[in-house]
Amino acid sequence: MKFVDGGVCAAKGFLAASVYSGIKQNILSKDLAIIFSEVPSVAAGLFTTNKVQAACVAVSKAHLKNNKAQAIIVNSGNANCCTGKQGLLDALQMAKVTAKTLNIKPEDVLVASTGVIGKAMPMGKVINNIPLIARKLNIKDSTEAAHAIMTTDTVKKELAVSFKIGKHAVTIGGIAKGSGMIHPNMATMLCFITTDAAIDAQALKAALKYSVNNSFNCISVDGDMSTNDMVLILANASAKNRLITIKTKEAFEEFKAGLFELTKSLAKMIAKDGEGATKLVEVLVKGAKGEKDARYAARSICNSPLVKTAIYGQDANWGRVAAAVGYSKAAVSEKSLSIYFGDTKILSNGKPLNPDENKLKSILSEKEIKITVDLGLGRSSATMWTCDLSEEYIRINAKYRT
Amino acid sequence: MKFVDGGVCAAKGFLAASVYSGIKQNILSKDLAIIFSEVPSVAAGLFTTNKVQAACVAVSKAHLKNNKAQAIIVNSGNANCCTGKQGLLDALQMAKVTAKTLNIKPEDVLVASTGVIGKAMPMGKVINNIPLIARKLNIKDSTEAAHAIMTTDTVKKELAVSFKIGKHAVTIGGIAKGSGMIHPNMATMLCFITTDAAIDAQALKAALKYSVNNSFNCISVDGDMSTNDMVLILANASAKNRLITIKTKEAFEEFKAGLFELTKSLAKMIAKDGEGATKLVEVLVKGAKGEKDARYAARSICNSPLVKTAIYGQDANWGRVAAAVGYSKAAVSEKSLSIYFGDTKILSNGKPLNPDENKLKSILSEKEIKITVDLGLGRSSATMWTCDLSEEYIRINAKYRT
Repeated sequence: MKFVDGGVCAAKGFLAASVYSGIKQNILSKDLAIIFSEVPSVAAGLFTTNKVQAACVAVSKAHLKNNKAQAIIVNSGNANCCTGKQGLLDALQMAKVTAKTLNIKPEDVLVASTGVIGKAMPMGKVINNIPLIARKLNIKDSTEAAHAIMTTDTVKKELAVSFKIGKHAVTIGGIAKGSGMIHPNMATMLCFITTDAAIDAQALKAALKYSVNNSFNCISVDGDMSTNDMVLILANASAKNRLITIKTKEAFEEFKAGLFELTKSLAKMIAKDGEGATKLVEVLVKGAKGEKDARYAARSICNSPLVKTAIYGQDANWGRVAAAVGYSKAAVSEKSLSIYFGDTKILSNGKPLNPDENKLKSILSEKEIKITVDLGLGRSSATMWTCDLSEEYIRINAKYRT
Repeated sequence: MKFVDGGVCAAKGFLAASVYSGIKQNILSKDLAIIFSEVPSVAAGLFTTNKVQAACVAVSKAHLKNNKAQAIIVNSGNANCCTGKQGLLDALQMAKVTAKTLNIKPEDVLVASTGVIGKAMPMGKVINNIPLIARKLNIKDSTEAAHAIMTTDTVKKELAVSFKIGKHAVTIGGIAKGSGMIHPNMATMLCFITTDAAIDAQALKAALKYSVNNSFNCISVDGDMSTNDMVLILANASAKNRLITIKTKEAFEEFKAGLFELTKSLAKMIAKDGEGATKLVEVLVKGAKGEKDARYAARSICNSPLVKTAIYGQDANWGRVAAAVGYSKAAVSEKSLSIYFGDTKILSNGKPLNPDENKLKSILSEKEIKITVDLGLGRSSATMWTCDLSEEYIRINAKYRT
């Protein structure tokens, strides 16, 4: 498996283009994009579990019922959420106009939005600009599409991996956005994935579920879960490999590994670019009684404002890690609890080791920091990622809407 | 019922004194205090539900088994948590030396600590200073005791209420500390309460549980739950009222109301003085299917960093309130969801009303802000309190330990 350029256009038969339509205030930033497969694709999606959901979530879910899609229309700057009936009509119209312009069926268009909640979509701007994007769709501009879905992100998230299934080269590419309202246990952001693999709907869904569960569902920026999050994947079979199904075990595992590598890398990019983040933190919890417990404990550490501020301050305040593990739902016994910062053991079976403070300072001055917690109660483990919490997070979010 | 001066020494027969022992670095701040009842008292306590618990929690729980106590020794600057066997021996010794000095039984001394986790208690300093405090115990210095338990608190929390039970004046007073690691669903901080009421152990426990559940368990600063939190109450019967029991219904309700008033007021003081806080936020969730749902939704709003930063930025970003309600465990239907900032309705049954922005700005410029959410699904409600989230929270917590 190797990483390749091209993002969401790296796989054969996928195009992408974007424009500035006027939804965002900054005229230098794109805010409306279309991702298009030249042929109809098998498709799957995972969506926010928030009970307040944006109109686009309802529309995309409905359009995925037949497991097919050919295009994704996505805007940033407005979430089209808490917008009542009109919001639903607007999301449907986004699909309709895109379908008409691209000469495909409305049911084959998926819709995504991100931005402010509770403002009516400026539909005139959206509708006027869809034909402009369509006209540009002879290009493969994944990078501009990756830019067009950004909100408070500071860098675009765009990746692709390529590997062989049998004798056929298969490519999976994706773009993502994150930054705020990032919380595990759901899609947690926008991510659009394209692949030229030939794969049936059941296998595609299974691979997506596995990959998201171990990547996007394992990151946390602020513990807030968005109303708009979705991960969509389109597979257009242009690689001409033998059809992957759950039963073609080896090929399925290869595809799943490729997809997981892509989503894990994108997830880490999102955690690293969390609002105001200066460091990426990897949390490994091992020795748990079961996988659920390992996840509970890791999530609790990743969500703790006190742990995250200590990391920001490069302060080896491991007591906050112990406290966060202790209030998680995991089975925890102080007597068997061990904590490491980097490779340095700080707490050993409940006993503080008081390691050299300068060594800890140097570990915490790195850009990427690993915290390991051994619960000492079993054999299960989980890895999650988060970022530190800085004044910049506050500054960004105190003034985001206005 | 009226508020009176004197805090933890307002009730008859209670003394308090404190010293600077050298646990804290700042020699201008007290860090060791004793609260003492001249006669043995009925006592009750509630403790952190964190699975990692400080040594003092274990000791105080054990010493409360007979529902009696006469003194509380408390230090700030060191949590005596994650300190292994030695920590437990140290906490026991704090009780022992205090008991010997005051000529009471070690089992009648309760122990509390707050501060950094994972550092050995400087027991020499503690033991040397206990006789010094005891010698000062001819005074009623509640205010200095309130100062001695502060960590990152910016103001002392000290209150007392007085009311009649039958013909007898009864007083309940308390001191508390909060600031960080404040999260509902447990004691969430240190609070010591004294009363001269004559009340049996069962009634005292019941009244304490009710009051804490609706006050300290309804505030949130950062969602982090501490390892050391406890609420202790001593009742020494000096008011000479007829003994309150669960069966003396009217008197019990009067006592409970007084205790709740005290704890609610102290809890709001803690929320208002949350680390870096500039505003107190009261969240009322009504129209819930059940009380649990109302609490889930209110807690979710109170814990949301995005809601808290928006309040700090005086930005009426109500979409974040909708999102936080949506990802709570409560039953929520967007169609019946209404949101108010102050008295101004912003969302009505899922429909945005777009109220005057200047009106909202003026509401959000106040020091105390009320957010009301009507789930429109039932008749249950819950009130919780939180504070806004500012850059100062980050600054405090990035450097707390060092």
